[in-house]
Amino acid sequence: MFYPEPIAKLIDSFSRLPGIGPKTAARLAFYVLRMKEEDVIDFAKALVNVKRNLTYCSVCCNITDTDPCRICSDKARDASVICVVQEPKDLVAMERTREYNGHYHVLNGAISPMDGLGPDDIRIAELVRRLGDERVQELILATNPNIEGEATAMYLSRLVKPFGIKVTRIAHGLPVGGDLEYADEVTISKALEGRRELN
Amino acid sequence: MFYPEPIAKLIDSFSRLPGIGPKTAARLAFYVLRMKEEDVIDFAKALVNVKRNLTYCSVCCNITDTDPCRICSDKARDASVICVVQEPKDLVAMERTREYNGHYHVLNGAISPMDGLGPDDIRIAELVRRLGDERVQELILATNPNIEGEATAMYLSRLVKPFGIKVTRIAHGLPVGGDLEYADEVTISKALEGRRELN
Ligand SMILES: [Zn+2]
Ligand SMILES: [Zn+2]
Repeated sequence: MFYPEPIAKLIDSFSRLPGIGPKTAARLAFYVLRMKEEDVIDFAKALVNVKRNLTYCSVCCNITDTDPCRICSDKARDASVICVVQEPKDLVAMERTREYNGHYHVLNGAISPMDGLGPDDIRIAELVRRLGDERVQELILATNPNIEGEATAMYLSRLVKPFGIKVTRIAHGLPVGGDLEYADEVTISKALEGRRELN
Repeated sequence: MFYPEPIAKLIDSFSRLPGIGPKTAARLAFYVLRMKEEDVIDFAKALVNVKRNLTYCSVCCNITDTDPCRICSDKARDASVICVVQEPKDLVAMERTREYNGHYHVLNGAISPMDGLGPDDIRIAELVRRLGDERVQELILATNPNIEGEATAMYLSRLVKPFGIKVTRIAHGLPVGGDLEYADEVTISKALEGRRELN
């Protein structure tokens, strides 16, 4: 490399991020060089704090800085419904609709044989444990409407059947093959309204 | 925001970078959450080190971790030629050709009235000071072949005229409107070969 070592290292760090190629990494590194020192330090602290100050909620497995998380601790929320999503960002997408007042469970992944991910690799055991709570009456499966999300929903619906809990799947108002994360609030609200029971 | 504060802050930091929208920023922040802690700490250190350990070479104005920089200190390089480029990354693009063995001057910008950048906002005074060195016989203007780069080259060629130094412009082998940074080695080599004297 012809760059001085500190900038070469930063280019390398940026280029390890997904979707950041070497040209973009160089552009970002030179941008950092021109940022105010205090902003760069804030950025560096934010990186480290995400690793150090965040954990997974011991109840719903969402990322959180308090345990249990704010949603699990919120007495105003309906404990009879658990909405199961793949990722923390999907929970955020659901919350944005402001139409859902129940609890969540974040799987932190989906069943995906192609990627070598089975039921034990995502937070399914933690979900099953929660079903022992007699307040739980409905499980809304809000995994993504793609192959992995559907497979995960199917797996969960069979797994949960013996518990005698109502299991619903959000409606395919969502574009098939799309990610929950990229859907607008109205689409997600509609999908939630149109949810149906899985038999 | 529905995200816990540490992740919200990191999303915010990423989204301040050029070309990174809120969705990409969120994707990157969640990726960091899953990175190894030591890699995150390395990334954070790389950010801070770029601000703390890099400076501008007091001779050529390139970014450097030693002053003068390695190129300015290299006795094997030809001190009779100075190649003027806009940005450190353009110098790197020139070096990659392995066809140039002279010195550089990095303007750290270009004259751009649209952006409120005049001759005093880039490192032109530092360049003029170097022309007092009697060894300097040629100035190669390798600013980008776009409006700002051409304007800067024109300005410099007039400014330097009284010094009686040969002033050349790299040939337009480079696609007009393109950036030196994105040109391949062969194109840059050709442009260098075909340079002509400005009158
Ligand atoms: Zn929770
Ligand atoms: Zn130098």
